[in-house]
Amino acid sequence: MPYTKEEEERRRAEIEPPVERTVEDAVLSYHPVRTFETREVPESHLLKILSLAQRSPSEWGVQPWRWLILRRRDQREKIFGCTTGSPAILSAPVVIVACANTNEWIEAKSTFQGRVEAGRMTQDEFEEAVKELDRLCGTSPQGAREFALRNTMMALTALMLVAQGEGLATGPMGGFDEGRIQRTFGLPEEWAVAAVCALGFPDEEFDRTLRKPLGDIVHWDTHGGPRVSAN
Amino acid sequence: MPYTKEEEERRRAEIEPPVERTVEDAVLSYHPVRTFETREVPESHLLKILSLAQRSPSEWGVQPWRWLILRRRDQREKIFGCTTGSPAILSAPVVIVACANTNEWIEAKSTFQGRVEAGRMTQDEFEEAVKELDRLCGTSPQGAREFALRNTMMALTALMLVAQGEGLATGPMGGFDEGRIQRTFGLPEEWAVAAVCALGFPDEEFDRTLRKPLGDIVHWDTHGGPRVSAN
Repeated sequence: MPYTKEEEERRRAEIEPPVERTVEDAVLSYHPVRTFETREVPESHLLKILSLAQRSPSEWGVQPWRWLILRRRDQREKIFGCTTGSPAILSAPVVIVACANTNEWIEAKSTFQGRVEAGRMTQDEFEEAVKELDRLCGTSPQGAREFALRNTMMALTALMLVAQGEGLATGPMGGFDEGRIQRTFGLPEEWAVAAVCALGFPDEEFDRTLRKPLGDIVHWDTHGGPRVSAN
Repeated sequence: MPYTKEEEERRRAEIEPPVERTVEDAVLSYHPVRTFETREVPESHLLKILSLAQRSPSEWGVQPWRWLILRRRDQREKIFGCTTGSPAILSAPVVIVACANTNEWIEAKSTFQGRVEAGRMTQDEFEEAVKELDRLCGTSPQGAREFALRNTMMALTALMLVAQGEGLATGPMGGFDEGRIQRTFGLPEEWAVAAVCALGFPDEEFDRTLRKPLGDIVHWDTHGGPRVSAN
């Protein structure tokens, strides 16, 4: 077998010890990747990442996210046609379409009932949670949509940092045509699309992206409040 | 000085080595906390967490999040009155109101221009990004709002996992009255509220919350597609 770049990647994948980054390392090393190595993400590795992402926080633990995992080239070409044409999608071995089930808040009520029966939620907490979900999601389709999107973005971010912690990298993108994705992939009408995210082993120089200074972001105690020692 | 619980906590804070969890450990140890120790989060620690959260991914690096940090008891009582009454808010030494600047996409254009001048973005990429932001955010206030909320949830999730990685814990909540928070804290009208999140050292037994099985969440290659080896 000729010692091609692909063969080198395959051998490296066999001999490299598993990467285990701290959260700090994962966050500091994060950068959105556009060019990935051709080697596959082993399915066991992908399942580990998906399992860990499943531990993501969500409001009332409702978990409205759904992952459509695209690995076949023809599927990745289809999703490429629904975006602004990010090269990451064709370069990466895996593309995750992060979907948000806008009806999940309805199903959540029966999940809560199960928690009450298991002694993990009091009857008062159950009634409060149902009342709040009804107010947030039941009074307008937009409320239900935002609830599902907010929580799906939490899980996607957890997934991205987990991938980073495992030595992989991601390239998320917001520039896509939601309706076209829904039609192209025959998604249920209650699924919103929150993001499209490439996943794989990075094959590019690390070029840390710029960030706003904390002074532009953080307001202490009041809007516009400067940093002073807490009372 | 009597050896009270507070004194014990103070001494522990002095002698404990810094916690550095891997991403896997942070995600697996995550649980939403309602009861926190009374000890403060040292300001240096809080600044480290905020700085690391600033490395969060965001669409086109736009960073629309703004953190209102509440530490004073009177401020925490005010935000308590804007929520469904989560005990975490009064128990935690720090409450973060995660706000989303719905006008950030407009300012982003001048940020992009700076990137072009610095050779970090091509002119084509600049034009594509501006066109997409205009389409996503410029055609409806709801689009701009969703863009800001999605990205703020990414940064909040990064912040929560960073805190977990550092040995702290968080208690996020979705049950709040957005308009009341905006009025109570005099927020700019372009700021949406994405979440309210308590932060501190956890003071409760670890009780891992339940998660849906992966089979309910993951769709391989097509909607409803079962897991098969990739081609």
